[in-house]
Amino acid sequence: MTAAHQHPLITLTSDFGLRDYFVGALKGVILQRLPSAQLIDISHEIPRHDTISAAFVINEICPYFPSGTVHLAVVDPGVGTARRMIVVSCASQFFVAPDNGLLSYFLNHAESRVYNITGKGLLKFKKSPTFAGRDHFAPIAAALASGIKPADLGDEIDDAMKIPGLELEKNGSTLSGKIVYFDHFGNAITNIKESDLPEHFKVVIGSTTLTELKENYAEGEAGQINLIINSSARLEIFVARQNVKEHLKLNLMDPVILNTCK
Amino acid sequence: MTAAHQHPLITLTSDFGLRDYFVGALKGVILQRLPSAQLIDISHEIPRHDTISAAFVINEICPYFPSGTVHLAVVDPGVGTARRMIVVSCASQFFVAPDNGLLSYFLNHAESRVYNITGKGLLKFKKSPTFAGRDHFAPIAAALASGIKPADLGDEIDDAMKIPGLELEKNGSTLSGKIVYFDHFGNAITNIKESDLPEHFKVVIGSTTLTELKENYAEGEAGQINLIINSSARLEIFVARQNVKEHLKLNLMDPVILNTCK
Amino acid sequence: MTAAHQHPLITLTSDFGLRDYFVGALKGVILQRLPSAQLIDISHEIPRHDTISAAFVINEICPYFPSGTVHLAVVDPGVGTARRMIVVSCASQFFVAPDNGLLSYFLNHAESRVYNITGKGLLKFKKSPTFAGRDHFAPIAAALASGIKPADLGDEIDDAMKIPGLELEKNGSTLSGKIVYFDHFGNAITNIKESDLPEHFKVVIGSTTLTELKENYAEGEAGQINLIINSSARLEIFVARQNVKEHLKLNLMDPVILNTCK
Repeated sequence: MTAAHQHPLITLTSDFGLRDYFVGALKGVILQRLPSAQLIDISHEIPRHDTISAAFVINEICPYFPSGTVHLAVVDPGVGTARRMIVVSCASQFFVAPDNGLLSYFLNHAESRVYNITGKGLLKFKKSPTFAGRDHFAPIAAALASGIKPADLGDEIDDAMKIPGLELEKNGSTLSGKIVYFDHFGNAITNIKESDLPEHFKVVIGSTTLTELKENYAEGEAGQINLIINSSARLEIFVARQNVKEHLKLNLMDPVILNTCK
Repeated sequence: MTAAHQHPLITLTSDFGLRDYFVGALKGVILQRLPSAQLIDISHEIPRHDTISAAFVINEICPYFPSGTVHLAVVDPGVGTARRMIVVSCASQFFVAPDNGLLSYFLNHAESRVYNITGKGLLKFKKSPTFAGRDHFAPIAAALASGIKPADLGDEIDDAMKIPGLELEKNGSTLSGKIVYFDHFGNAITNIKESDLPEHFKVVIGSTTLTELKENYAEGEAGQINLIINSSARLEIFVARQNVKEHLKLNLMDPVILNTCK
Repeated sequence: MTAAHQHPLITLTSDFGLRDYFVGALKGVILQRLPSAQLIDISHEIPRHDTISAAFVINEICPYFPSGTVHLAVVDPGVGTARRMIVVSCASQFFVAPDNGLLSYFLNHAESRVYNITGKGLLKFKKSPTFAGRDHFAPIAAALASGIKPADLGDEIDDAMKIPGLELEKNGSTLSGKIVYFDHFGNAITNIKESDLPEHFKVVIGSTTLTELKENYAEGEAGQINLIINSSARLEIFVARQNVKEHLKLNLMDPVILNTCK
């Protein structure tokens, strides 16, 4: 028994909310199969059906978790349809989700391997469940956390669905980015990283052009839109003490254009 | 030591909310007595004093948990009054709650045994506490999870309180049901089960009559009231992309009448 | 290995909210360093930057937790500034927080020892992080929970910051107290304890004078302001079935004056 299997960690991310019995049912299914599992709630308050935000959250937290951690994510606008269930193995961790783009951030890693989970005899699934999180995804997570290999549960694939537009597009000295997450303060986080920023730059968001970074949120001029490199080394847009999402009526996937200046 | 006692599971359901220190105090009391306990939050967002919804939630989640699990539920409009504390033993699981109907769904099971917990010397309770969840119910849950038998904590009773009206009433070809839960989308879940439905039926909710089931939520006609069998095999009322509770001004325990048609 | 280290308990209190990835990242950092840690969420819904409420919550829950528990609290209006990180050792438990008053309630205990955590070689911190909870406080909590002594991580100090006004002031027969917490029902909890109350008293809150205690919330006269001794033996102000905070436009640290009567 490896260290990972002595304390099998399973993280949970969903849009189920915290009021009802849905998260509880999912937890029960895992614990019935693997009583030693440690269940770690990441968020169950992902905006309903918002796969873009869920994909971002899972990508943000995974670097902090130990090898062997299983991350279960269930956010699915197409629940009940003939969606495949996939597992991504990446950096010694496992990610379980519907094949709807939730695992987009991991699909480009050279070391990622993606599996279409069919059960292959090791897992028996209820046919066409209305609560796939409980009936299919929770058993898959429990199986992986107990040491079963993804390859024992399904076949490797290379056509998992990616959310379009999550990657930066480079065109000469212009980098086209996007807003990929709003935190609960309304701050807008982009897919542009600190390492993408040249010494001198111009960032264009809608009709606003910005050319410098603030060192911290307190430095932001009141009522003004500001840029900062956030705690995940990403370019973030904020208005001091205000909700920039509402202030500028921003949406997920709005363009953020980065021009290099001489 | 049995498997259950190596990983003693205690689930928590309450109307305490997640903002204050109440849930934390309850968890501390359990862990001080049983440091190996695994605490699983089901919901602390049960509407305040809503024993009908809490009873439903506990009933929904218990089939998914392993033998030996202790389910602690604290929702009590009569807190501070001379309420009995009961434990129900059912299907190798234990349920701890005030005797106010929270465990109604388990009281009719042939195999259920109900105990009035007085301590009987094994537990010493603070007299008339203002926070019974922390001072009485948490110690009971910890005791059960550590392997103490309910019969060691109190005497068996047969007069535990039941919420009136949770059971279907049959009258010729008419089955009188009720709305017993609203999920956070506002969908109305009834106490009528898939197995209660004849091939041809008429369901009457207020002034609305429905005669067919939708296969999934997406099939629901916009603005129209629809029926579905939900993920727990219960008859559920919904309006596609709307809150049926608000739309029809429904309340818990509103009648749902099922007529069998030829 | 002591009992505490077999089931190392770490409680978490913050103003991060439950929607985003911030709590998840913090949990990952702890579990990567100490996979056997049991993480207990106290509250992540502390009002933003409200150190007074956070200080109260930590003080309320700690009596219920076992020896060896590590309590991690991250609420910091001055995040990003040159704030010290402190550990308080008190009653065989450990408290980790920024030096901004969060641990005020423990600083007067005769047995408390306070340490300024610098790492001292056992911990390597990222310089000036923008997410100190994840990069500094979580590693400190994991280190303590794994059995490392506070003195191995920093030097003892005696000048940790205290929130001014949390202590009662005595002036002849007058005791000047404060409102130090509002629960989510809006009830106002004071720093006056049951043991501070003489047989006959007058309590003045704004323009209201009260001279008696209710036995329970149900006894409170509707629309009237009432006093009760709450479940933590503190004097609490409430209006039956109403939010006294909104009703009287009360704020944290508002004065509550207690006069002894003959």
